[in-house]
Amino acid sequence: MSRITVLRLSHRIGRDDRVTTHVALTARAFGASGIAISGDRDENLLNSLRGVTERWGGPFEVTHVDDWLRYLKERRSEGDLLVHLTMYGLSLLEVMEELKRLSATRTMVVIVGSSKVPREVYDLADYNVSIGHQPHSEVAALAVFLDRLLEGRVFSIAFQGAKIVVIPDPRRKRVVRSSYDRELRLRTEGES
Amino acid sequence: MSRITVLRLSHRIGRDDRVTTHVALTARAFGASGIAISGDRDENLLNSLRGVTERWGGPFEVTHVDDWLRYLKERRSEGDLLVHLTMYGLSLLEVMEELKRLSATRTMVVIVGSSKVPREVYDLADYNVSIGHQPHSEVAALAVFLDRLLEGRVFSIAFQGAKIVVIPDPRRKRVVRSSYDRELRLRTEGES
Repeated sequence: MSRITVLRLSHRIGRDDRVTTHVALTARAFGASGIAISGDRDENLLNSLRGVTERWGGPFEVTHVDDWLRYLKERRSEGDLLVHLTMYGLSLLEVMEELKRLSATRTMVVIVGSSKVPREVYDLADYNVSIGHQPHSEVAALAVFLDRLLEGRVFSIAFQGAKIVVIPDPRRKRVVRSSYDRELRLRTEGES
Repeated sequence: MSRITVLRLSHRIGRDDRVTTHVALTARAFGASGIAISGDRDENLLNSLRGVTERWGGPFEVTHVDDWLRYLKERRSEGDLLVHLTMYGLSLLEVMEELKRLSATRTMVVIVGSSKVPREVYDLADYNVSIGHQPHSEVAALAVFLDRLLEGRVFSIAFQGAKIVVIPDPRRKRVVRSSYDRELRLRTEGES
């Protein structure tokens, strides 16, 4: 299984809290092995994301990156494959098979920005890839990219050490919780 | 082609601006025919979304809904299919073929909430459907749901009356703009 890290560019405390959270949770749920967040060092966000992994299981690595340019250059010099998701890039359909082949042996860094992405990212990336050419969302782009690259891993992924597990139900919220990490007790959640 | 409206529940001005925007843009880019937004009536958001359709093409209908419960009951009584995306529901993989079959003849309302979804939504929905059972993002869930239901329509969708069209490029941002709606002039965008 290929190893994938998501790099979230230029996080700003306050303004980006929720979207960066969505990016990180999507990375985890869809099969990436970690997220690196550049921009503001946001301890609340980092702790909150680590809390999700503590409750819902891991492994999923959450790190802050001081200098994204240096980070990308280092990853590149280590042989990692840099893929930048942008509505201006080549269609994922065109490069999908190539990416699947390459990612079988190389770690991949999937770069997602917000509105303004510096020119260097386009230049440094091995691939600038688009999920359609309309404006939408880096969360949507990341989800569909990972869903297609990892062939639906979101539907089968299992996390280690989870204290909460959902029991799929057609009509209500049902979860299993472990209060002491080992003892699981079945519980049906209330109204919502 | 099936007709799909996305219902975004309980929008709050300020707090939800960006995520609701991402939900709406994802709905449009991935092939839904419109979005209905309940909660706060947010004229700035509605205008901004209509502006996207004006520049990037349509049709894509953007409406505010005063009473989501009444809206859902009306849609239901008109024979529409109500699908609620929730991490607690049945896996999309289990119901995909059924949904494809049903949506061929019935309009579908895809309901996406934020953190707290009222119990009535689970009860009223014909299907409570999950994209994996981990916490992630309603934007991610909507994107993957539409991508799979509409079989990659995001990659081929064409909008009418677009004033901006992206020219896919492996290395840079390139767009075609029409200044006067009819006359298109080729232009390569600057650095970013």
